[in-house]
Amino acid sequence: MSAPSGTTLKVAFIGTGLMGRPMVRCLLGGGVSVTVFNRSPGPLEELEKLGATKARNPAEAVRQAEVVITMLPNGDVVGDVLRSGVLDAARPGTLFIDMSSIHPALAREHAALIAAEDCQSLDAPVSGGTVGAEAGTLAIMAGGDEADFGRAAPLLALMGRPTLVGPHGAGQLCKLVNQAIVAVTIGAVAEGLSLARAGGADPVRVREAILGGFAQSRILELHGQRMNERRFEPGGTITNQVKDLDAVLDVAARSGITLPLSQRVHELFGSMLEAGEGGLDHSALILELERL
Amino acid sequence: MSAPSGTTLKVAFIGTGLMGRPMVRCLLGGGVSVTVFNRSPGPLEELEKLGATKARNPAEAVRQAEVVITMLPNGDVVGDVLRSGVLDAARPGTLFIDMSSIHPALAREHAALIAAEDCQSLDAPVSGGTVGAEAGTLAIMAGGDEADFGRAAPLLALMGRPTLVGPHGAGQLCKLVNQAIVAVTIGAVAEGLSLARAGGADPVRVREAILGGFAQSRILELHGQRMNERRFEPGGTITNQVKDLDAVLDVAARSGITLPLSQRVHELFGSMLEAGEGGLDHSALILELERL
Repeated sequence: MSAPSGTTLKVAFIGTGLMGRPMVRCLLGGGVSVTVFNRSPGPLEELEKLGATKARNPAEAVRQAEVVITMLPNGDVVGDVLRSGVLDAARPGTLFIDMSSIHPALAREHAALIAAEDCQSLDAPVSGGTVGAEAGTLAIMAGGDEADFGRAAPLLALMGRPTLVGPHGAGQLCKLVNQAIVAVTIGAVAEGLSLARAGGADPVRVREAILGGFAQSRILELHGQRMNERRFEPGGTITNQVKDLDAVLDVAARSGITLPLSQRVHELFGSMLEAGEGGLDHSALILELERL
Repeated sequence: MSAPSGTTLKVAFIGTGLMGRPMVRCLLGGGVSVTVFNRSPGPLEELEKLGATKARNPAEAVRQAEVVITMLPNGDVVGDVLRSGVLDAARPGTLFIDMSSIHPALAREHAALIAAEDCQSLDAPVSGGTVGAEAGTLAIMAGGDEADFGRAAPLLALMGRPTLVGPHGAGQLCKLVNQAIVAVTIGAVAEGLSLARAGGADPVRVREAILGGFAQSRILELHGQRMNERRFEPGGTITNQVKDLDAVLDVAARSGITLPLSQRVHELFGSMLEAGEGGLDHSALILELERL
């Protein structure tokens, strides 16, 4: 199959929720022909008005596609969608790009399933939230073969900044690396601002004073401000943070390494989850520290 | 005493080492009249050529000064300098600005000593290293009274970005907050990049992929690159990192709070110090993780 240039590829997009919807808008804005499917039909109407084609089921969506993008809540749902007709319906040579965040081991399993049907795949989870999805500035962490990444790159570039970080599963691993760094950095900022307050300094001015130095981070900017303003509506929930850290520690154990700070922050978030605070933003970790 | 405007103040600067020297150059560049003293006389010649006045001892340096700035290796040295003639020689109303990094409790002790001589003081440690000192872009974290900060601000602004963060000692506390956040964030990045490598992704590409997202930090940019390139010449040494964390944990204990991640990273850096690796850059923490 000769690969047509990025924006003339026919794309099926499955999963047009909070993240998927603005991602499809980016593709349509780039002139891509997109067929969409979503379990609840609400978003499909809006996307149809913008030029997308609505499919009645996932198999119908992928039948004419050269690239199938999935953006689904978890790995089990991705597996169900693949197995319930989508893989059968796809033509040989179809490139599957899973942009959902799932366990790396499951991503490798899906890659093998897809390869057995003479199709190709990339795992390509994202970071940047709905804001990044709207702006088309998502960090896109891709795992798979160089040639498939080359085929996908012009499409992915419409949604953000794609980087190939290794073989199948490496994109999902990179997402876990991201989540581990985010969790521990939230811990760093929470401890720093707790110390400032307990020691008698003004935590608002402390945050401002250190933003220009080596302590600067997106977490200090965004989550540090939430901690100082005590605004803990999510954003990213503690429930999701614990789920991510479960996967981080599972992959670390399978790889034979120990991550002492990720472990410790997992315990702290875990206590909050048990105390019924799973729905708070992860910056609420500062509350747990203040109780210690 | 009527306070003259910033750059017409007569300044005595004690301690013209690696940091002090470029800071004096910033003051001279701003048209400030500076008298300098340093224990080893080398840097004084260079500063004299740039327009500074050389003093033979600290007491001589401060006798005509309206502002006395100290930039010395530790709190004991600052105390020695104050007690060995400097406080006696200073005129009433002299403003002492200690830009050294010392324990907050010692800073409060010095403030009381200085107030007993009818002089005023600020603690104003910095972050940003020799690069920030050369460029005049240091983060300057000040503790003391609003009026004294107002008097000092035009001078401090020649060396960087000053912020008043609370009463006497709060500047030093803020510096410890900065150091705690830096240490734990180094741990976050080291764990993330270890996980990437152990799980089979390319840590160089992983760092690039996540720099645009929530995991972004100065530490990921600078120390993350050192970790990937295995360049561990300091920079900031592990010995200094342990010393800073000793003070962080001491202040936390005195303030009745617990900092579990700072404690854990203190243990990790402590093992490296015991293993004779104190002279390595603190980004070498990744070596300790790989041994766990």
